Amino acid sequence: MGKKIVIALGGNALGNSAEEQLRLVKNTANAIVDLIEDGNTVIIGHGNGPQVGMINKAMEFSAVNGGDTPNMPFPECGAMSQGYIGYHLQQALREELKARNIDREVASVITQVVVDPEDKAFLEPTKPIGAFLSEEEAKKMAAETGYLYKQDSGRGYRRVVASPAPLKIVEINVIANMVEEDMVVISAGGGGIPVIEKEDGSLEGIAAVIDKDKTCAKLADDLDADLFIILTAVDYVYINYNKPDEQKLEKVSLETMKKYIKEGHFAKGSMLPKVEACLQFVENGKNREAIITSLEKAGEATTGSVGTRIEGESDMVHRMMNAFRLSQNA
Amino acid sequence: MGKKIVIALGGNALGNSAEEQLRLVKNTANAIVDLIEDGNTVIIGHGNGPQVGMINKAMEFSAVNGGDTPNMPFPECGAMSQGYIGYHLQQALREELKARNIDREVASVITQVVVDPEDKAFLEPTKPIGAFLSEEEAKKMAAETGYLYKQDSGRGYRRVVASPAPLKIVEINVIANMVEEDMVVISAGGGGIPVIEKEDGSLEGIAAVIDKDKTCAKLADDLDADLFIILTAVDYVYINYNKPDEQKLEKVSLETMKKYIKEGHFAKGSMLPKVEACLQFVENGKNREAIITSLEKAGEATTGSVGTRIEGESDMVHRMMNAFRLSQNA
Repeated sequence: MGKKIVIALGGNALGNSAEEQLRLVKNTANAIVDLIEDGNTVIIGHGNGPQVGMINKAMEFSAVNGGDTPNMPFPECGAMSQGYIGYHLQQALREELKARNIDREVASVITQVVVDPEDKAFLEPTKPIGAFLSEEEAKKMAAETGYLYKQDSGRGYRRVVASPAPLKIVEINVIANMVEEDMVVISAGGGGIPVIEKEDGSLEGIAAVIDKDKTCAKLADDLDADLFIILTAVDYVYINYNKPDEQKLEKVSLETMKKYIKEGHFAKGSMLPKVEACLQFVENGKNREAIITSLEKAGEATTGSVGTRIEGESDMVHRMMNAFRLSQNA
Repeated sequence: MGKKIVIALGGNALGNSAEEQLRLVKNTANAIVDLIEDGNTVIIGHGNGPQVGMINKAMEFSAVNGGDTPNMPFPECGAMSQGYIGYHLQQALREELKARNIDREVASVITQVVVDPEDKAFLEPTKPIGAFLSEEEAKKMAAETGYLYKQDSGRGYRRVVASPAPLKIVEINVIANMVEEDMVVISAGGGGIPVIEKEDGSLEGIAAVIDKDKTCAKLADDLDADLFIILTAVDYVYINYNKPDEQKLEKVSLETMKKYIKEGHFAKGSMLPKVEACLQFVENGKNREAIITSLEKAGEATTGSVGTRIEGESDMVHRMMNAFRLSQNA
């Protein structure tokens, strides 16, 4: 019996140029088609950090330095990155499926994700985007555009935007439908194009970076997936990382993972949001699992031999716990 | 009874910046939702000339002038433009549908279109893309990249690429499926990302511009649409255009339109490919119609009061003609 699996691919694993990305997506496609060949239904989400950064930087450079092209808002750059990455991913996936005689359609869906304009993340933007500027350039740009600039790791000033939580995947019904039709769907690129929902229900793009792991966790939750896999640079999550008593995590319960978070084992802006995304997915349903591992180990991870696996409550335990909670509240 | 309508939107009608495009897609959405409200199924294809030009120009400017971003191949720029335009179109369509209480999903599909590397168009590239260069710059770039440059309307040198015919829409099954599920689908942006199909069936992007009207005609043919509408800058097609005996065309038969083409009434690279795309669609099936008109007149055109309408054979005539042709060949 196959599982419904949502995969969150790291944008860093996609490379820094078109040539590099075209080469790297072949490995990605290979690992993903392994899962499909095993009878699983796979839905793919992906990051876009380096890619949207590159697009934004080029558009800005050209607009500011006489390239005779207009300024391009950040959400539009995100939409471009979805087209750019989706194109390469779908081409590579199609090729790998064909090579293995698996008859499956592949498609990328341009995805908008609603965020809350009142999200407290907007009070303290933290995500650096675009090029490094001198203090003087940054001040000039800030005055002209209203953008916020912060010093970034001593290398100069960069524009920072907020990283609000994903509230709603606008195209979720489209995606769910395509999954039901047995297509391999690529969506939620870069965490989705961030939009706010106005009172009349219309949407408007907003400069922000939604954490792609959180959006993918939401996607997995919305689709009621069995398994959510975050593919990153390491095979396992560790506690006491880089210390003498460093320990890799294999099978971990929800409660234990929460304890580790409280103890501060996971780096903010790096492993912490990944672990949190997994917990969010696992906690929100029954018979759910989440895995954090590397692309290379994706296949082994689904059969349970590699990776950090976070297990939720089984159906029976879930119901027992609910009954218990209800009795406690009574 | 509603019709299945494929619309080919002009890229020129989408504007030259994100702000302009966001404003213009609202009119577009309004006209398209009129057709949906009348009970028709609408599939949208669109051009991307100014948009992919802008993206290509900015990426090239940044790569060449020290913007610290990599060179971006033309097919990838096309994929970006599909994301960029699709995002705005789907947002505007969703808003207009919502405002009229029409419950319909909207989605943009990143679309690849197969072309023949032996297409004779590759022998004589004609489509200018990217920035104007001086003769010296063009020679330098040509030597470095192998690109072909031609003098363009006295304003300098521009890179030229071929405009081969669309052979196959790679994601056609995905699109057909979404249409069957009653979604409003945006696809085939810019005529599709041009790819060639290699011997092992894998695809590879190639620098080319596929005529968007021809790809949309193929889309309409593949989906067996009832009606194919090309929305352009004028309400009607004319014969003897700009001459004293200029005459607007209303209802025209296939045969008459072919005669007008032979007589050279339509400008190459402008109205001719539009008329040809219409003929291609109408001729390839039965009970088919094609219309060339303006965005503003789209609604009136479908009810027959405005626009140049090319009518094919009705079902009965189609069968009679076939029988006649067979008897002639016997």
